Amino acid sequence: MPHINVNNDLPGIRGLMAFRPETADAMGALANILLRDDEGISRAERELIATHVSYLNDCFYCHSSHGATACQYLDGDKALVDQVRKDYPNAPISDKLKALIAIAASVQKSGKAVTPEQIEAARRQGATDLEIHDTVLIAAAFCMFNRYVDGLAATTPTDLSTYDTRGRQIAEKGYGKHIFSTPSETVAPLVL
Amino acid sequence: MPHINVNNDLPGIRGLMAFRPETADAMGALANILLRDDEGISRAERELIATHVSYLNDCFYCHSSHGATACQYLDGDKALVDQVRKDYPNAPISDKLKALIAIAASVQKSGKAVTPEQIEAARRQGATDLEIHDTVLIAAAFCMFNRYVDGLAATTPTDLSTYDTRGRQIAEKGYGKHIFSTPSETVAPLVL
Repeated sequence: MPHINVNNDLPGIRGLMAFRPETADAMGALANILLRDDEGISRAERELIATHVSYLNDCFYCHSSHGATACQYLDGDKALVDQVRKDYPNAPISDKLKALIAIAASVQKSGKAVTPEQIEAARRQGATDLEIHDTVLIAAAFCMFNRYVDGLAATTPTDLSTYDTRGRQIAEKGYGKHIFSTPSETVAPLVL
Repeated sequence: MPHINVNNDLPGIRGLMAFRPETADAMGALANILLRDDEGISRAERELIATHVSYLNDCFYCHSSHGATACQYLDGDKALVDQVRKDYPNAPISDKLKALIAIAASVQKSGKAVTPEQIEAARRQGATDLEIHDTVLIAAAFCMFNRYVDGLAATTPTDLSTYDTRGRQIAEKGYGKHIFSTPSETVAPLVL
């Protein structure tokens, strides 16, 4: 049960966003740019970075939902997503993405943990200023989203199939108002 | 020098925001609601929570700039702001604000560090659901802003008077586009 009465039974961040639509609008806009921009790193790569950082922050709701969305962009390859969650250095992903995830993992600890050597390593793999910027901000933003969800003890579904359903919807429609303005579902709760 | 070439000489988060206006718009909107909403906790209290969390995250730029803004709402009482930074339990602030800052300090560590007892203690001092929500989200958002600024090694002025100038402007005008769309200053760089 959440720490506050959100006056709805939507799961996870959706319940919090419905409680406070003013902040939800701004956070949805940020997520749409950071996770769905087609310039630089791909949507799959953006969601994988978000998933890994959420896993490091031990936020089950966020790493499950963003992992499910990443999966939608990766032909349903759950094993790949799970390896990026837990063991990205050995996952079959590009060296550039590995270098960017290393930066994101430092950001998860602290902004100051990012080293010039990590930035240089990403550049050597072809990462641009924009890609490095977006990686740092995705990682930083998930240090916010994860703390928001767990800091208010948002309802977290344990049935993983609900995350798959929501992952499909997010991949299709993005992080707009529909996330928190739809009526609560009576059969299968959907998750962000 | 920042880790990326931001193509401007604006200090701190302003330089990063000018580099990526799309994400800047969303972050400015979030800051305006979280730090300037007049419902529930006051603007001074919101800035003090932001200052304390930024201090815990060791982000000099953010705790200096938001401390300067808090000061504007507190008749220039720098000693009070500094005590909230470093020793809020003994600062001359309300017991409600102390209980809320305790929650924010837990969020800085991890969302899961917030305890039902901390929530209950804040309620006993009269905190509402909205105030607890905003406290958690302010703390979470500064775990993002702080990591964004330091994770990209944004330029950080060491002359504290520049933060005072900017604090006055923010207290007056808020966190709108003017933050990152103004031309760079040649004499005294202004800071968010």
